[in-house]
Amino acid sequence: MKTKLLLSSTLPQQFSFQNSVLIYDKKLEKFFSGWIRKFEKKYAVTAGEKLKDAKYFYSHVEKLHQLCRLLGKNELQVVAFGGGSVGDFAGLFASLYRRGTKLIHVPSTWLAALDSSHGGKTALNIQGSKNQLGTFYCAEQTIVCHEVLLSLGDQRFYEASAEATKVALLQGGKLYKKMSQVRNVHQLMPLLPDLIAAKLKIVRRDPEEKNGIRQLLNLGHTMGHVFESSQKIPHGKAVSLGLRFAIEWSAHLQGAAFNSELIGIATKAELWQALKGLRDVQKLLLQDKKSTAKNKLRFIFLNKPGDPFIQEVSVKEILNEIKRQVKSDV
Amino acid sequence: MKTKLLLSSTLPQQFSFQNSVLIYDKKLEKFFSGWIRKFEKKYAVTAGEKLKDAKYFYSHVEKLHQLCRLLGKNELQVVAFGGGSVGDFAGLFASLYRRGTKLIHVPSTWLAALDSSHGGKTALNIQGSKNQLGTFYCAEQTIVCHEVLLSLGDQRFYEASAEATKVALLQGGKLYKKMSQVRNVHQLMPLLPDLIAAKLKIVRRDPEEKNGIRQLLNLGHTMGHVFESSQKIPHGKAVSLGLRFAIEWSAHLQGAAFNSELIGIATKAELWQALKGLRDVQKLLLQDKKSTAKNKLRFIFLNKPGDPFIQEVSVKEILNEIKRQVKSDV
Repeated sequence: MKTKLLLSSTLPQQFSFQNSVLIYDKKLEKFFSGWIRKFEKKYAVTAGEKLKDAKYFYSHVEKLHQLCRLLGKNELQVVAFGGGSVGDFAGLFASLYRRGTKLIHVPSTWLAALDSSHGGKTALNIQGSKNQLGTFYCAEQTIVCHEVLLSLGDQRFYEASAEATKVALLQGGKLYKKMSQVRNVHQLMPLLPDLIAAKLKIVRRDPEEKNGIRQLLNLGHTMGHVFESSQKIPHGKAVSLGLRFAIEWSAHLQGAAFNSELIGIATKAELWQALKGLRDVQKLLLQDKKSTAKNKLRFIFLNKPGDPFIQEVSVKEILNEIKRQVKSDV
Repeated sequence: MKTKLLLSSTLPQQFSFQNSVLIYDKKLEKFFSGWIRKFEKKYAVTAGEKLKDAKYFYSHVEKLHQLCRLLGKNELQVVAFGGGSVGDFAGLFASLYRRGTKLIHVPSTWLAALDSSHGGKTALNIQGSKNQLGTFYCAEQTIVCHEVLLSLGDQRFYEASAEATKVALLQGGKLYKKMSQVRNVHQLMPLLPDLIAAKLKIVRRDPEEKNGIRQLLNLGHTMGHVFESSQKIPHGKAVSLGLRFAIEWSAHLQGAAFNSELIGIATKAELWQALKGLRDVQKLLLQDKKSTAKNKLRFIFLNKPGDPFIQEVSVKEILNEIKRQVKSDV
């Protein structure tokens, strides 16, 4: 199944509000209460780590079941209105409820618009271990509304830029060139369709992560997750550090660097600072979903923009590379 | 993906015990402690309705995560050793853990051997509503062991016979003829491969319940679930009553009956008794997963063995048919 993408300037007014259950980030009430009120069946959630904790999933499910139970399986649709955690939560619910209910994403953050709403992946955390419980489940439709993304202001933009840059790094060519000129939210907007298309191209070649191609999307994420867990660095920032780490390692291996001064990639100085503050690296690496045999992980390297490759490395090799980068001149 | 079926006289001794997490019905320790002990990582559960209650799912997940977390995604396999509730629970866990872990079923009951271990369906209940939370997920392998099924004695056999008879009714021909001669557990055993094959034939034509073909497997189950919920009748008995109801209704519609004195079909007298004791039929019917638009359900009828058909009926039509059957001579 393919997710249909609808780019729209405003929230849709022609919509099957009657058959929908809206799961939404309560912070959005401030800006979009008119649209939210159109839904008879709605469920407000607080976005963030608690929503991603599988421990609380069932208490939500009971309440959602009360809202949904009188709608027939074929009429019911779940509408997720929020950022990544809301999309993950609502997506998992939709994929499980009656073994699969129609799902529509209305992402409210740049990151969700670029990432979680197209990946067809949903997941929650177990005892802090990331995304250990989830499904592969495609939304019927993702509705990306400019008015929603712009309502967030510039602040959340930084969060998205690492993800956008990652996709541009994987795609290379024109998209990479255009991305390297982006400096603010208004410059990113026109690139959105190309970025989403580039990401979907990879996802569709490997929808259930069977042949390894989709692992390319983990570029910057192996170390990104370590930064995120070890130092509580926000996801976007952590990925921008992870991208810099992958680029530096790649350059070291092949003895050549490329221009990488994009908005979504941390500077060498920022990375150096973050690497020095790392704790429990080995333990966190071993929790990585991409770990293969004991103490081995698949790491994504880049020959140059548009030319990524996957190589199995040992945890020890990563630890050595961290040491090398910490020691090297900034 | 297809589930490989292995029919075996004993439990497998050549097996990747090291990479497995065994989820097993603790009642089986009495008979098969030697085999269970071969697993380093194992998790005993109490089979039944509490295990099927989604409320308790996460507390199990936390413990299972502790057992599983050090095994890499590609090496780990979940082995479900038990009846339907154990298979449903372990299957749901395997389908969600790390977005999908290898799954092997070793069914310990006739019903599971015939039914839940091949359907590729997993589900738990929400607040008593049946199978409201689940996934479509095929096991890699189902290992049906004679020594396990025979250890249960004749008692659980009755439970399976309704399910076996349902499959024979759908398949018709030779299988139906052979099934009509079965009177005990030893006569059922040789039919097992044909019964499983007949069921898989239907499942594989519609693995995710998209085109309606798989709904044929609900023969006898629409009313079966009503008997089960309304009067706490065991599943096998409830389905045998549901089969008789569907056969009687079919015969009434077309003005012709066929020989239906099979071991898995309740007698008219038993059905009459059960129909008289029904409570909350309308409410229970509306919870049916096969309900379409409001107050409509897809009901499975039979022209004759091997010739089933699906027809949309209203709840009112079912209530009228119940009245008709209660009033008709036994």
